[in-house]
Amino acid sequence: MENKNVAVLGSTGSIGVNTLAVIGENADKFRVTALSAYENVDLLEKQAREFRPQVVAIYQEELAPELKRRLRDTEMEVASGIEGICRASTLPLTDTVVMAISGSEGLLPALSAIRAGKDLALATKEVMVMAGDLITREAEKKGRIIPIDSEHSAIFQSMAGAGKEDVKRIILTASGGPFYDSDEAQLENASLQEALNHPNWEMGRKITIDCATLMNKGLEVIAARWLFDVEAEKIKVLIHPQSIVHSMVEFVDGSIIAQLSIPDMRLPISYALNYPRRLPNGLPELDLAEVGTLTFQEPDVERFPCLKYGYDALNQGGTMTTVLNAANESAVEAFIEQKISFKNIPQVIREVMDKHQVKEMESLEQVLQVDRWAREEAHRVIETCR
Amino acid sequence: MENKNVAVLGSTGSIGVNTLAVIGENADKFRVTALSAYENVDLLEKQAREFRPQVVAIYQEELAPELKRRLRDTEMEVASGIEGICRASTLPLTDTVVMAISGSEGLLPALSAIRAGKDLALATKEVMVMAGDLITREAEKKGRIIPIDSEHSAIFQSMAGAGKEDVKRIILTASGGPFYDSDEAQLENASLQEALNHPNWEMGRKITIDCATLMNKGLEVIAARWLFDVEAEKIKVLIHPQSIVHSMVEFVDGSIIAQLSIPDMRLPISYALNYPRRLPNGLPELDLAEVGTLTFQEPDVERFPCLKYGYDALNQGGTMTTVLNAANESAVEAFIEQKISFKNIPQVIREVMDKHQVKEMESLEQVLQVDRWAREEAHRVIETCR
Repeated sequence: MENKNVAVLGSTGSIGVNTLAVIGENADKFRVTALSAYENVDLLEKQAREFRPQVVAIYQEELAPELKRRLRDTEMEVASGIEGICRASTLPLTDTVVMAISGSEGLLPALSAIRAGKDLALATKEVMVMAGDLITREAEKKGRIIPIDSEHSAIFQSMAGAGKEDVKRIILTASGGPFYDSDEAQLENASLQEALNHPNWEMGRKITIDCATLMNKGLEVIAARWLFDVEAEKIKVLIHPQSIVHSMVEFVDGSIIAQLSIPDMRLPISYALNYPRRLPNGLPELDLAEVGTLTFQEPDVERFPCLKYGYDALNQGGTMTTVLNAANESAVEAFIEQKISFKNIPQVIREVMDKHQVKEMESLEQVLQVDRWAREEAHRVIETCR
Repeated sequence: MENKNVAVLGSTGSIGVNTLAVIGENADKFRVTALSAYENVDLLEKQAREFRPQVVAIYQEELAPELKRRLRDTEMEVASGIEGICRASTLPLTDTVVMAISGSEGLLPALSAIRAGKDLALATKEVMVMAGDLITREAEKKGRIIPIDSEHSAIFQSMAGAGKEDVKRIILTASGGPFYDSDEAQLENASLQEALNHPNWEMGRKITIDCATLMNKGLEVIAARWLFDVEAEKIKVLIHPQSIVHSMVEFVDGSIIAQLSIPDMRLPISYALNYPRRLPNGLPELDLAEVGTLTFQEPDVERFPCLKYGYDALNQGGTMTTVLNAANESAVEAFIEQKISFKNIPQVIREVMDKHQVKEMESLEQVLQVDRWAREEAHRVIETCR
């Protein structure tokens, strides 16, 4: 096999760092063509010096001069702003774009990559929540989307070799997060620090809070709808606190195929980069006898309404999932800044959704406009929470 | 799709009856070309009248005249003896032969079917234990083997779409049978009735006793070696009392793919008949939230030495697995006839294995000769147990 040329967008975040770890261990198989970060110039410079990409992009334009200065002894091209990120995502040389930009900022570069015919190794499920309809319509023309999110990767792996018409149902597993066994009063007083204390996974702050509210699973339901072309009623969620079974596919004959592994993002990353082959790695093996017990239960959507809102948005369709995503990002940001309480998060989202007049999803411009509207509405609601 | 022409050998046994149930529910997809039974003339006649095969074969030659008399108003051909069964397994019209003859009697008809270029839907794992080396060498030339045994079907399903070089390990699950939580004294006094009381599966007597001794798993380890072309050290067994995860495949990247379902043989039968597609059926769905808990533990080969003998035979290779299988069949038969105790079963097998001089597996004639020798030795040992 020839080297695969990989652009890593969001390279200084949790997924980005893990992606470069996988690539670093398989230097004979991959070549990094582009790196991008939001603002972490120190780490971006370090990564650029190690992986020698053609383009290094920084989102925050005001940091571009500093990055240029630091890399002036190299031949790398320094790009900046959203145009710079899109430049990094569309380099002719690139085969696969790893989209690891957190949240909705990934939409434009993801769409650009797909339009440029790249394979998209997608960690940013928000992209599919904002504009899954648009993205999949584009991906049908060229390019290919391989999910990196552990749940969607598990579904992708479980479907290998199967026909879509044989699929009866997708079963997404959820750890339940740090509060799954908490009562209403405990949820009411949940602190930021408690919410950031995920039982099984080490991840960025946004996704960790989403796990605590179960909105992460709501977003995954929506992303699964687009990634695997299945209707909402065929997507089920089960609470599985051990995070060993990463998701499952149930077939029309009643047989279920499941993917299991230790919870480590390097596994789905490595799978997405190497698909359809698998690469050995130095990670610990999953010892099921040591794990001993795997448990499953129905999710409690009364205590964790965000999951229900995910289904609601999907069922209303059109621009409603864009609104859900924007309102959630705003609410989580406000919670991280300790402007609102944990219980306020679903309230903010619900209020913004209730104000929105759903429209069919037509264009990127419309999606971005709805996204802006929802964020403004969310900020208005957040002000009333204080 | 055109109708698939299916011969069902061993049609009056548990797998045979379930196979005909699947076929009966999908009369637009399958046509029965041949049926065969050991001695159950009543049920065989009934099945023949319902499914109208071209050939009906009965193993016990002395029952052939009675079967002919009963079917004289039809145009079906009645065959008998091992030649009759082989005639049923090689009809030119047949696409797939379902091999559901219990134990070693399946070897000749299975080999005939493979040599005639048929797809072999194989429930009789003993065939692979007796002569896996021979059978797979023949199957490489023509025909195809699709396992029906629930564990091997699970492995087959979990490997779909994967390359053999990506497989690190096969993990066979075992319910542990009715005695897994029994102590030595209870095992010493285990009665036939207790041994026949399997916690999860309703099956024939031979396989149910094999489950109680864990020899069933030893046989499956050997069959897996040939069915999936993996070495003994890459085959692991885990005790999983719920019989929901039917087996798993671990890949080189540490990811595990598992197949789960309710324990019902109609699922692997239907999969084998329809492979690579899946057929809807009226079976209950697996509700993992209702099941709640799945557990896994290492097997105890001290209390259940038959599993270890399976590995021993495989490691010694050649004709030793033939001996293991023959000695086990003899011992189980003697236990069912209440000639020996439950704890005598492994003793008989071990003694016969210890007396055998391993040779490379060369021919069918040699296999049958070794099989006969081992049965004679086993009977000699059984006499000393009384």
